[in-house]
Amino acid sequence: MSIALIILAAGKGSRMESDLPKVLHRIAHAPMLWHAMRAGQSLDPERTVVVTGHGSDEVTAAAHEYDPEARVVLQTDQLGTAHAVAQAAPELEGFDGDAIVLYGDTPFISHETLEKMAQARAKHDVVVLGFEAEDPARYGRLLTDGDTLLRIVEWKDASDQERKINLCNSGVIAADAQTLMSLISAVGNDNAAGEYYLPDIVSIARSRGLKSGVVHCDISETVGVNSRAELAAAEKVFQASTRSRMLSEGVAMFAPETVWLSWDTVIGRETEVEPNIVFGPGVTVESGARIRAFSHLEGCHVSRGAVVGPFARLRPGAELAEDSHVGNFCEVKNAYLSEGVKANHLSYIGDADVGKGTNIGAGTITCNYDGVFKHRTTIGENAFIGSNTMLVAPVHVGDGAMTGSGSVITDDVAPGALALGRAKQVEKPGFATRLMDMLKAKKAKQNKG
Amino acid sequence: MSIALIILAAGKGSRMESDLPKVLHRIAHAPMLWHAMRAGQSLDPERTVVVTGHGSDEVTAAAHEYDPEARVVLQTDQLGTAHAVAQAAPELEGFDGDAIVLYGDTPFISHETLEKMAQARAKHDVVVLGFEAEDPARYGRLLTDGDTLLRIVEWKDASDQERKINLCNSGVIAADAQTLMSLISAVGNDNAAGEYYLPDIVSIARSRGLKSGVVHCDISETVGVNSRAELAAAEKVFQASTRSRMLSEGVAMFAPETVWLSWDTVIGRETEVEPNIVFGPGVTVESGARIRAFSHLEGCHVSRGAVVGPFARLRPGAELAEDSHVGNFCEVKNAYLSEGVKANHLSYIGDADVGKGTNIGAGTITCNYDGVFKHRTTIGENAFIGSNTMLVAPVHVGDGAMTGSGSVITDDVAPGALALGRAKQVEKPGFATRLMDMLKAKKAKQNKG
Amino acid sequence: MSIALIILAAGKGSRMESDLPKVLHRIAHAPMLWHAMRAGQSLDPERTVVVTGHGSDEVTAAAHEYDPEARVVLQTDQLGTAHAVAQAAPELEGFDGDAIVLYGDTPFISHETLEKMAQARAKHDVVVLGFEAEDPARYGRLLTDGDTLLRIVEWKDASDQERKINLCNSGVIAADAQTLMSLISAVGNDNAAGEYYLPDIVSIARSRGLKSGVVHCDISETVGVNSRAELAAAEKVFQASTRSRMLSEGVAMFAPETVWLSWDTVIGRETEVEPNIVFGPGVTVESGARIRAFSHLEGCHVSRGAVVGPFARLRPGAELAEDSHVGNFCEVKNAYLSEGVKANHLSYIGDADVGKGTNIGAGTITCNYDGVFKHRTTIGENAFIGSNTMLVAPVHVGDGAMTGSGSVITDDVAPGALALGRAKQVEKPGFATRLMDMLKAKKAKQNKG
Repeated sequence: MSIALIILAAGKGSRMESDLPKVLHRIAHAPMLWHAMRAGQSLDPERTVVVTGHGSDEVTAAAHEYDPEARVVLQTDQLGTAHAVAQAAPELEGFDGDAIVLYGDTPFISHETLEKMAQARAKHDVVVLGFEAEDPARYGRLLTDGDTLLRIVEWKDASDQERKINLCNSGVIAADAQTLMSLISAVGNDNAAGEYYLPDIVSIARSRGLKSGVVHCDISETVGVNSRAELAAAEKVFQASTRSRMLSEGVAMFAPETVWLSWDTVIGRETEVEPNIVFGPGVTVESGARIRAFSHLEGCHVSRGAVVGPFARLRPGAELAEDSHVGNFCEVKNAYLSEGVKANHLSYIGDADVGKGTNIGAGTITCNYDGVFKHRTTIGENAFIGSNTMLVAPVHVGDGAMTGSGSVITDDVAPGALALGRAKQVEKPGFATRLMDMLKAKKAKQNKG
Repeated sequence: MSIALIILAAGKGSRMESDLPKVLHRIAHAPMLWHAMRAGQSLDPERTVVVTGHGSDEVTAAAHEYDPEARVVLQTDQLGTAHAVAQAAPELEGFDGDAIVLYGDTPFISHETLEKMAQARAKHDVVVLGFEAEDPARYGRLLTDGDTLLRIVEWKDASDQERKINLCNSGVIAADAQTLMSLISAVGNDNAAGEYYLPDIVSIARSRGLKSGVVHCDISETVGVNSRAELAAAEKVFQASTRSRMLSEGVAMFAPETVWLSWDTVIGRETEVEPNIVFGPGVTVESGARIRAFSHLEGCHVSRGAVVGPFARLRPGAELAEDSHVGNFCEVKNAYLSEGVKANHLSYIGDADVGKGTNIGAGTITCNYDGVFKHRTTIGENAFIGSNTMLVAPVHVGDGAMTGSGSVITDDVAPGALALGRAKQVEKPGFATRLMDMLKAKKAKQNKG
Repeated sequence: MSIALIILAAGKGSRMESDLPKVLHRIAHAPMLWHAMRAGQSLDPERTVVVTGHGSDEVTAAAHEYDPEARVVLQTDQLGTAHAVAQAAPELEGFDGDAIVLYGDTPFISHETLEKMAQARAKHDVVVLGFEAEDPARYGRLLTDGDTLLRIVEWKDASDQERKINLCNSGVIAADAQTLMSLISAVGNDNAAGEYYLPDIVSIARSRGLKSGVVHCDISETVGVNSRAELAAAEKVFQASTRSRMLSEGVAMFAPETVWLSWDTVIGRETEVEPNIVFGPGVTVESGARIRAFSHLEGCHVSRGAVVGPFARLRPGAELAEDSHVGNFCEVKNAYLSEGVKANHLSYIGDADVGKGTNIGAGTITCNYDGVFKHRTTIGENAFIGSNTMLVAPVHVGDGAMTGSGSVITDDVAPGALALGRAKQVEKPGFATRLMDMLKAKKAKQNKG
């Protein structure tokens, strides 16, 4: 069965107090829209239609960043969910298969649930995703008769009896695409808000002799986000479930609640992740590495046996080979550190390639920027970069070469050579004593005066 | 109606295990006393009387730091709450208006509640603040008859029937100031502890034909602090409610529970605050700024478009103009960074003014201290400070000037000039190889020996 | 009464998804085995027998690291708890006293509980530790008659009636050592798993006319660890209880839930511990010190009045004397900082001794490593190390001496002298302007091209 996803992403989200369209607010560094699109991927959809509205240009760009093949339609006026789905019709013309309606601000629908919905289509013309709520509040209620979904009733239209029902409407619906569009075209807007409501298709289907059914999911999957507090709560849910999964896969985190993962973070078995780590997007850490406390990683790769931190920052393009070390107060960006390289203290390694076994002394800086251009530093194998060496790029230090502490290296260094750029130490006997005496006398005078 | 605040702040707090007087223990970087004083400010009090006892000098200093006009009285012996209030009498002589009794260790009374109390005075001679407790434990109970408060009964004097009452005494009381003092002078100490209890005034008032009434507040407002564990719990309450407020105002925090705010922190809408941020006192951040993970801010101002961190520290007097950047492992103190200034790596900028568009290279240090005095560094616009430049203050670098990496700048640099202080790079061919061979041989010998 | 501990530590822990034997997984930086061994220390045991199995070599090494006198036996095949205890028999031959069986993966048994068990032996031949569980799930149940323990029934053998019992078996058992061994030799393996179960000794004892009794403990003491999620939960329990204890002892933590303590961390009264601190093993902090936010400490000592952080790292061997300061982005390792020493910015102090009152400028680095050997730096009293000084060890700076910023110090500096290693500042007028113009022109050309 071919599947088309219809993802509603037109909302403004005024309670977010933000200029950013609602579905672009991020959970674990990915726009909520991406979470919804990722959930739908499990069905291997033939096409994906994103219905945009508020901030359409930005939402379109985000949709295409996730999936360049996504089809984007514009809902100019927000006239209700049925109206939103109707905008997808041109993109489904001639499409033979099922359509599933998802929501860009409901990021936690699971693969398993969507697969159950797809399977349930064998028995029902329309499949609605429902959830049991202990306190169903103002959700629409699902009125069922055994296996059959009779009707979806909005909370405000519900009788007292109906309000006692705990089975609620998530809004997620699956049906044959052409049937869906036909049902939607029959939805009216004869209600207080003057909106076209998607749930109305259930009654319409029934009046046409079509059968509707319900698939159940856990309430946690249907969490919607309408404010920044709800966004933070959703983030918390995502983090907790991702941390749990990682623990069960053998990642060693002794304070998992202090580890902030990205939607795409990958960490191998037996890798130690200490407290207070932030993973930005695009990080992969192999098995058997160690990420020490207070580290910040984005867009980087850490290999087996490598040690990062404490207090290390890996920026995009940092590649740490096996057994390499990046220690405290070090920043690595767009740089390849080969096997066994050590940069353990107060260094900035940017736009660089460092060969196997090389030791980078404390306070080393690759001076990669001349005010306009960025340049590259290359260092060979088993080199020894003395403390506080400035490597003024472009520059190359050869295999087994050495630089003296405090040197500014502007010219290439030959393999096995020692490069020095250092003034001779001179000593002025008694000078410090006299200077301090003078300064203290001045201060004493000031304090009096 | 004129208002006088009487704030009881004499307690020792022996369960705090501390030499610091109890009301000076801080919540969100402010002494609890300040929180109580701030709550009272909403009534625009004509005078504020702080009753001190333990650590009177320190408490007095703190009271005056918050409000130089505060009147401080000393309760030499701690003989009960009525006795404490009585100490305020001299400072209320001739005062025509209401007095409200607050507690220096009860920091969370809200403005709204105090305003309700002030209004309730129209109906009652004495107004007592009560709260419903699910488990009222050993709180005093409020005995009411409809609208009227009959009596406050201490837990230990209460009958079983009275102990079933859930309405408890917060201790906060409002009354006409002169009436209050008159009632208090009638309070006796004929009880086990030999103390003068403030709640006794309700019975005395009744015996005089005066009416007492109750205003209700939430139990969370009456939280008192008696141990460090309770202090930490109160901190948690304050942080949670402040974070919620900020989220609702449009501050973007994806991990709000890791952001530690100060009592006076101000953050604008759409500013991103990443995880693990500590705000010390005196920080304002404009809208549309970005505070990245692991940053620490105190006494500073961050403008729109500015980016701070990750791993940045802003100390008192740091002023970041629009679109300026302070990056990882950078410290800024008492310095003005103009529009677009970038100090992104491993730098210390103290006692400095930096002009628009200037780029501060990695490892730059303003050497502002000569062992006795601090000196100022000034840098013009669009300058380029090379990596690892030492700026030995007092020193000035002109507009559009440049310093070479690794230079020690002791003299002013003219606009547009390049200043260099750098030894020529020399190379000793083969030296590194020979040195390493020698060291390794020595080590091998040692290992054998 | 002499006591022997028998600690079962043979399990693999396959649900940990780890190559490390289960009992070596750490809580608060100590292997769970050590927690169990430490609990038993309260009984002042005459001997400790650790029963190893999976990863026997590693477990043996860990046991001996904690207690070099520990006797280790090997359970080659894991045939049940009774079989495990039986392996200890050779090490208890001729031992006259009580044996207590503990578990290497049950780290939270309290001293008090073990002492109660030892005392209960006066009344009972066999003492079993039980706990009440609200939801006892699949724990074995303790069948009692008044004071007497009749039988322990495994969940899978229990009747519906028996399953309603809430009193569960912790597995911890005390008995006369020789009696225990005699009872164990009678345990059979006639059950589904073919294993020898320790709880069977209760029935056997009864059949021999011996009396068994129960000591109760809180369920929190009997928490076992079988997965990384449970390990993280146990860590959380340990941290919470340790933080509570420290608060009650007068340690000032305003965000205790962000402070990660080690099993052996010692912190004095009135020491301030700010948010986001990680204590590794071996840290002692005296009273009245201050550990500022985002600091990381391991194997170090901090004295009264000293200030650490924010963003400081103290590594093993760091010794901070009274009123010394280690500030942001500073790392101290194997170094003694005397009274009043200040190293406040961006420095690495390793393998060093620094005398009283010395000021270490920003960016100072002790160059302690020559690629093969580590060398020591010594600095006298009241010296002034200029910013960005490289101290190339071995080197000595005398009392009251000074180094110029940006100097590389390779030779000893005499007391009171100023040492400089610095190139003269030269200026190239207009050079910066011309260079920038050229670079910008190049860029403009590239952008066009």
